[in-house]
Amino acid sequence: MIITCNADIRRIDYNKILSEIKEKGFEADILRGLEKNQRPIIGLKGDCSTIDTGDFLKLKGVSDVKRISNKYKLASREYNLEDTVVKLGNISIGNGYDAVFMAGPCAVESEHQILRIAEEVKQQGAVILRGGAFKPRTYARSFEGLGEEGLKYLKKAKEKTGLYIVTEVMSPETVELVSKYSDILQIGARNMQNYDLLDKLGRQRKPVLLKRGITATIDEFLGAADRIMLGGNNNVMLCLRGVRTFDNSQRYPADLYAIPYLREKSHLPIVFDPSHATGKRSLVPSIAKMAIAGGVNGLLIETHYNPSEAKCDGAQMILSEEIGPLVRFARNLK
Amino acid sequence: MIITCNADIRRIDYNKILSEIKEKGFEADILRGLEKNQRPIIGLKGDCSTIDTGDFLKLKGVSDVKRISNKYKLASREYNLEDTVVKLGNISIGNGYDAVFMAGPCAVESEHQILRIAEEVKQQGAVILRGGAFKPRTYARSFEGLGEEGLKYLKKAKEKTGLYIVTEVMSPETVELVSKYSDILQIGARNMQNYDLLDKLGRQRKPVLLKRGITATIDEFLGAADRIMLGGNNNVMLCLRGVRTFDNSQRYPADLYAIPYLREKSHLPIVFDPSHATGKRSLVPSIAKMAIAGGVNGLLIETHYNPSEAKCDGAQMILSEEIGPLVRFARNLK
Amino acid sequence: MIITCNADIRRIDYNKILSEIKEKGFEADILRGLEKNQRPIIGLKGDCSTIDTGDFLKLKGVSDVKRISNKYKLASREYNLEDTVVKLGNISIGNGYDAVFMAGPCAVESEHQILRIAEEVKQQGAVILRGGAFKPRTYARSFEGLGEEGLKYLKKAKEKTGLYIVTEVMSPETVELVSKYSDILQIGARNMQNYDLLDKLGRQRKPVLLKRGITATIDEFLGAADRIMLGGNNNVMLCLRGVRTFDNSQRYPADLYAIPYLREKSHLPIVFDPSHATGKRSLVPSIAKMAIAGGVNGLLIETHYNPSEAKCDGAQMILSEEIGPLVRFARNLK
Amino acid sequence: MIITCNADIRRIDYNKILSEIKEKGFEADILRGLEKNQRPIIGLKGDCSTIDTGDFLKLKGVSDVKRISNKYKLASREYNLEDTVVKLGNISIGNGYDAVFMAGPCAVESEHQILRIAEEVKQQGAVILRGGAFKPRTYARSFEGLGEEGLKYLKKAKEKTGLYIVTEVMSPETVELVSKYSDILQIGARNMQNYDLLDKLGRQRKPVLLKRGITATIDEFLGAADRIMLGGNNNVMLCLRGVRTFDNSQRYPADLYAIPYLREKSHLPIVFDPSHATGKRSLVPSIAKMAIAGGVNGLLIETHYNPSEAKCDGAQMILSEEIGPLVRFARNLK
Repeated sequence: MIITCNADIRRIDYNKILSEIKEKGFEADILRGLEKNQRPIIGLKGDCSTIDTGDFLKLKGVSDVKRISNKYKLASREYNLEDTVVKLGNISIGNGYDAVFMAGPCAVESEHQILRIAEEVKQQGAVILRGGAFKPRTYARSFEGLGEEGLKYLKKAKEKTGLYIVTEVMSPETVELVSKYSDILQIGARNMQNYDLLDKLGRQRKPVLLKRGITATIDEFLGAADRIMLGGNNNVMLCLRGVRTFDNSQRYPADLYAIPYLREKSHLPIVFDPSHATGKRSLVPSIAKMAIAGGVNGLLIETHYNPSEAKCDGAQMILSEEIGPLVRFARNLK
Repeated sequence: MIITCNADIRRIDYNKILSEIKEKGFEADILRGLEKNQRPIIGLKGDCSTIDTGDFLKLKGVSDVKRISNKYKLASREYNLEDTVVKLGNISIGNGYDAVFMAGPCAVESEHQILRIAEEVKQQGAVILRGGAFKPRTYARSFEGLGEEGLKYLKKAKEKTGLYIVTEVMSPETVELVSKYSDILQIGARNMQNYDLLDKLGRQRKPVLLKRGITATIDEFLGAADRIMLGGNNNVMLCLRGVRTFDNSQRYPADLYAIPYLREKSHLPIVFDPSHATGKRSLVPSIAKMAIAGGVNGLLIETHYNPSEAKCDGAQMILSEEIGPLVRFARNLK
Repeated sequence: MIITCNADIRRIDYNKILSEIKEKGFEADILRGLEKNQRPIIGLKGDCSTIDTGDFLKLKGVSDVKRISNKYKLASREYNLEDTVVKLGNISIGNGYDAVFMAGPCAVESEHQILRIAEEVKQQGAVILRGGAFKPRTYARSFEGLGEEGLKYLKKAKEKTGLYIVTEVMSPETVELVSKYSDILQIGARNMQNYDLLDKLGRQRKPVLLKRGITATIDEFLGAADRIMLGGNNNVMLCLRGVRTFDNSQRYPADLYAIPYLREKSHLPIVFDPSHATGKRSLVPSIAKMAIAGGVNGLLIETHYNPSEAKCDGAQMILSEEIGPLVRFARNLK
Repeated sequence: MIITCNADIRRIDYNKILSEIKEKGFEADILRGLEKNQRPIIGLKGDCSTIDTGDFLKLKGVSDVKRISNKYKLASREYNLEDTVVKLGNISIGNGYDAVFMAGPCAVESEHQILRIAEEVKQQGAVILRGGAFKPRTYARSFEGLGEEGLKYLKKAKEKTGLYIVTEVMSPETVELVSKYSDILQIGARNMQNYDLLDKLGRQRKPVLLKRGITATIDEFLGAADRIMLGGNNNVMLCLRGVRTFDNSQRYPADLYAIPYLREKSHLPIVFDPSHATGKRSLVPSIAKMAIAGGVNGLLIETHYNPSEAKCDGAQMILSEEIGPLVRFARNLK
């Protein structure tokens, strides 16, 4: 059971709730404490099936009381029956809106490269530009991105094209830096359980694109989203990108199966990344179409004008001009 | 390298091919021997990149020579660039044709039940009726099907509705029996590597619906198809149905990712079974839509008029009336 | 809850038990029916926590009543607190006895080969000779074994050395044939859920070595053992041999972790096959030592005097002379 | 191919190596640059099989030239044929030495608790005390450790008992803090690919205990070790702790199979953590014994005097007094 308080609840009323919980023989679980301008949220540990929600609803300062059966709370459908819609200017990402296309290269390699690709993907119907400035690499010494220089090029591309920007932030220390340039902050699969990073992104307000770890369970994935939301940031998008299994025919077999399940379990927007899932250019469009048919709210696709000369992920990038047909496929499907 | 001979090749010419192989320093791999009315197929073991295909093509009785890099041969795209289309009366299953719907209950439970469901799914647009007469069960003592009685009910349903029948055959000894009643012989996931069964189905001519084992690699899956085809039966359909992974949010997470990959690797028709993949009724339509968007040639779906009273798989069967919208979705997508 | 009857229970008393179950509002689950010379076993479906076991114990013809929480019954530790010991002449396989070594080639290739290896492994301390006469192969056309000829060579080796024989039986139809020559009937990993085969082996009395399917859960593994035991054959040995995971550094990473867990869950003897697990000769002795330290009751190891010339599994066979040190390691560990 | 330079190589000689590489038509891969007091290491990209190692060995300032086929270099057996031994005072961790026992509670909970357990495990034969001060948690709001207070208690325990300390460091920012109190810095499974953290630990000199990510491949695991070593810290220990698979009978099925494989592939000491692998107290001793039989150089085991009252991992902690028998098992096995 979860008790949501009013943002302006007085300390005395807040404490009264805590003592009421104790009196009923339960232990309080402070999901979000008494901070300024945030609605405090108090959980009750253990089996609360015998408690009447009315007992708490009637207390002063209480805004809502809900029974939630999952370990993750705020990210669950039980907590929010209405679909969350993330807004970026006049763009809406979430149920009831057209699937949004986020496209661009694996990594920002030069001003020329990112500007050219930005123009291309915009023409094809994308509204958000992706491009890595900081790249996590499994083996030392691979190309790790241009850093802030890359961020600056992304910003220039935004100024020229009007596209919004999504790029990865890899550590708590660089959150401010990346925030200066990017509209959406992406958490990579490797960092899905980097709690310092999750907490930091919870305390700021830019939308977060959270990628599923390659072997994270759905519960763990939503647990990570929950952690960001408990910080006060509800603008979280769930991004699927393939999982590691016994099947090595593809890099990370696409977890398309999780789309309808996530839709049932959570109110957050769902994005799919077909590029990392397949690891193979020729398979990307089919995987993207399946994700669209499954009802995703956005797609994150790696594109390039010349994939074979890219510094990373060349094998999985499609041509920018392959985005257009996918956009039309999505429009026709409605 | 693979040498396909004419069906009427003379023994003397056949032996000449074998000695030519030996002379060139290679070992022959008799994929299909010198039997009546079948085109013999001879493989060459080892790296054949230095051999000129023309050296064999010019031999008497040789119909074709191909380089094939996979362990599986006849099932590979390299062996047959043209898509295989399986025919059942006026129904065509394969690329270039509408996706075919196979629907019906998990198990045939009574004459009334199967007749009623047959009428329902026909009205919804299905053209093939599914229904288990022999059911494999993980734990002893679960309902194991009506056996031949169930097969008879299926045949009656065919006579009344004109639907074709697909049902599982579980062992080599029952192939003749099941063949008397069924138009398509289904090999269940547990039997994907039951070689006696594969060989037996290779020696007869009814179409075979081969299900992927829950942790079979794609190579193993195509290896099993190959084994049937080497017997002389080319009417093989590949049926995906979910795989076992670390993710327990669903019974067998749907292996939708494999659809485009199989399409590249093989010329055989692809069918998807969303019911066993999800194990959960509410997810079936979304998974089915994704499979359709991925380009499958057929769907195999469990339906019932009253899933909750079914003797097996009740949790994953949808209502027959949910088939219609999927049929229309498939038609609109073209 | 499970009710075990006396082997000589009268039909009238048996029926009385069934009606008593019905009267109490439960459904009977006939695990083993009223057949000659076998103790009938009746299960109760559903939650039986409210029933007093005494209510059934006092009925005529009832031998025992037990609460068993698993889906598998007879194979569970709850059913039999005492460890099962499989006897072969003066050899005992089970807790309280020395680990038994079963060694020999992947496949019987010739009379000379199997006789030579039999002598070698006997000298090293093995007491059971392994060797495949029927080999299941993933891809068609690999060496499939000598068939009955191979079985005859095994028997000859037995006559010469006194070693007992274990070899695989691949289908229900060949059970009689293989039984003529072999002391232990092995069910391969691919056939762990071949129910016709399990049932057939349940109806005969030779010991069965059941291999775990490469992605079978422990519950499914014990469910398969249960199925054999329900037929009346209690001489079942559980053989671990590696599982399929995301890790491709080895063929089937050894499931050593399952040894202590199986010991807790079941009373059956546990055997480990390090050869198929590692797929690599140099790793076999270390895996074998770990299995011994984990307390297995037997080891099944592939050996050859010249692994590199073997027709199958050459990469994973060790030299016969490597068996001796493992036998001594096991003896010293006690 | 890898060229190791002398630590005091002059810039002019270093540059000569680079130009020699270029001249031969290869690209240099600066594994470790020209920094003070560190031996620079230069890799050659691509297939170097045609180059004579002597061409580089004869250059001024070159200490060694090696052919290494893996993506990871310094961590590989090819780079260092001799086993690495990590020293802590008079304790040696590595091949040729007794397996070292690291024991203690999941988390430091109080001064009293950690002092008591320290005394207990010392008496049992452990020489290193484990205990979490910073705890990573999958779901927000679980107990996250005492932080620096916990570190202080660990230090006190060290002063009283002489045990060395191993504890986890969760982020680059806390490396200095944790280093003040701990003798070994542990990297948790979730952080195995936290590159900022790996790099930071590479630049300091305390021994690092690197845990395998729950679905990291062996190559990725050694790639992470490599990353630390490239920073200049060779004191890396590889800690296995179970992997995520389809098998849910245990939390993270123990990856014992990886012990002999790691031994072949790397020269680094191997440690096993049976507590997190099993997630179940009764299985811990058997898993530990198997790891010992497999030849690990150390064990990391969670213990408590009263597991049921522990704030975390109670289900998997064994009693301190269970350590003694394992120590004796290890001593007897030699």
